[in-house]
Amino acid sequence: MKRIIEGDMEKVSEFTVRRLSGYFRILADLEQNDVVTVSSARLGELGGVTSAQVRKDLSYFGNFGTRGLGYKVSDLKNTIMKILGLKKEWKMALFGAGSLGRALFFHDGFKEDGFFFTRIFDTDPAKIGASWGNIRIQPVSEAEESLQNDPVNIGVVTTPKSAAQATVDLMVRVGVKGVLNFAPVRVEIPSEIWLRNVNLAVALESLSFYMSSQ
Amino acid sequence: MKRIIEGDMEKVSEFTVRRLSGYFRILADLEQNDVVTVSSARLGELGGVTSAQVRKDLSYFGNFGTRGLGYKVSDLKNTIMKILGLKKEWKMALFGAGSLGRALFFHDGFKEDGFFFTRIFDTDPAKIGASWGNIRIQPVSEAEESLQNDPVNIGVVTTPKSAAQATVDLMVRVGVKGVLNFAPVRVEIPSEIWLRNVNLAVALESLSFYMSSQ
Repeated sequence: MKRIIEGDMEKVSEFTVRRLSGYFRILADLEQNDVVTVSSARLGELGGVTSAQVRKDLSYFGNFGTRGLGYKVSDLKNTIMKILGLKKEWKMALFGAGSLGRALFFHDGFKEDGFFFTRIFDTDPAKIGASWGNIRIQPVSEAEESLQNDPVNIGVVTTPKSAAQATVDLMVRVGVKGVLNFAPVRVEIPSEIWLRNVNLAVALESLSFYMSSQ
Repeated sequence: MKRIIEGDMEKVSEFTVRRLSGYFRILADLEQNDVVTVSSARLGELGGVTSAQVRKDLSYFGNFGTRGLGYKVSDLKNTIMKILGLKKEWKMALFGAGSLGRALFFHDGFKEDGFFFTRIFDTDPAKIGASWGNIRIQPVSEAEESLQNDPVNIGVVTTPKSAAQATVDLMVRVGVKGVLNFAPVRVEIPSEIWLRNVNLAVALESLSFYMSSQ
């Protein structure tokens, strides 16, 4: 019954990880613009945090940068990529070939980060057999055997609420290590599997909170 | 140049808002299961935070609950809905009628929260004129006039990177108060407009971080 509110499981670390994702994108931008070094003050400014926060976040992972000279952009970018596990290739299975599943499947940002969908499953006979890219949509009834023969690291859930728990249970049986759940429902999962719930409405609720309080 | 890393702009508040979104969903769940009262300990347990955190988050907005009795589920749910601005109707314009735009447009969770798309814009002649639900996809060239006549509160950006800044500039000109940006690029926006950048890869990076560190 833990790991429900995204980002609250291990608070400090999770927020640090989110900021690392932000620094990574800023550094990639700077690198593309041929910027060679960056100070913690400038990195903080671009990321909307203090320079102390930048230094603290990075200090968890070692000693980077040189006093007075700042960080080497490419080196720090590569280091953060490694910290975030983005130097590997992660295989993912998609459960739910609806419009959200389709959007995720064709989202370029995932491939750039090293996340690849290798399997798609759905229960809808109208979808089964069709192909997205060069991957055929398979019936969920084939999922267990298929994923036992060709395992994935991460399962992505875009099924209806009612199917989410059974889908996660199946993922656990075939040995996924991480689950990304877009179904707006709480799912139970063994504590050794990592779970992230993504609720697309949360960002809108944050906007409406601030817009209402003005 | 602020407001870039989602959640870091006004740190404490933004994270409190995220947790409020979580409490709201838990309370809605409890209400559906006919639970009448809930303690801060139980709410914290369900949300993966401490009871002290629950009490602190709620204390920003007034005095709820009764010592020893806990919170009334329905009352607290309604109060948090109001705090989050979910008792209003928010009109939204979608820019970018691609697969992600489509997934957001048909996402039920938004309507349940009071967020409604009233306009869709794209530049692709193959898409213009088609309808999603009862809303016709209009050319971007009509957007400025259309949104001046029938304003929206929130603009949602699912355009390619290259079109994101011009889209946001247009939204600012027609007076949106909030922008939800899914384009994986940094956009500049006047400080009086609220911006949330949503990067779908961040949740995956958080998974790969923890999966790598095991």
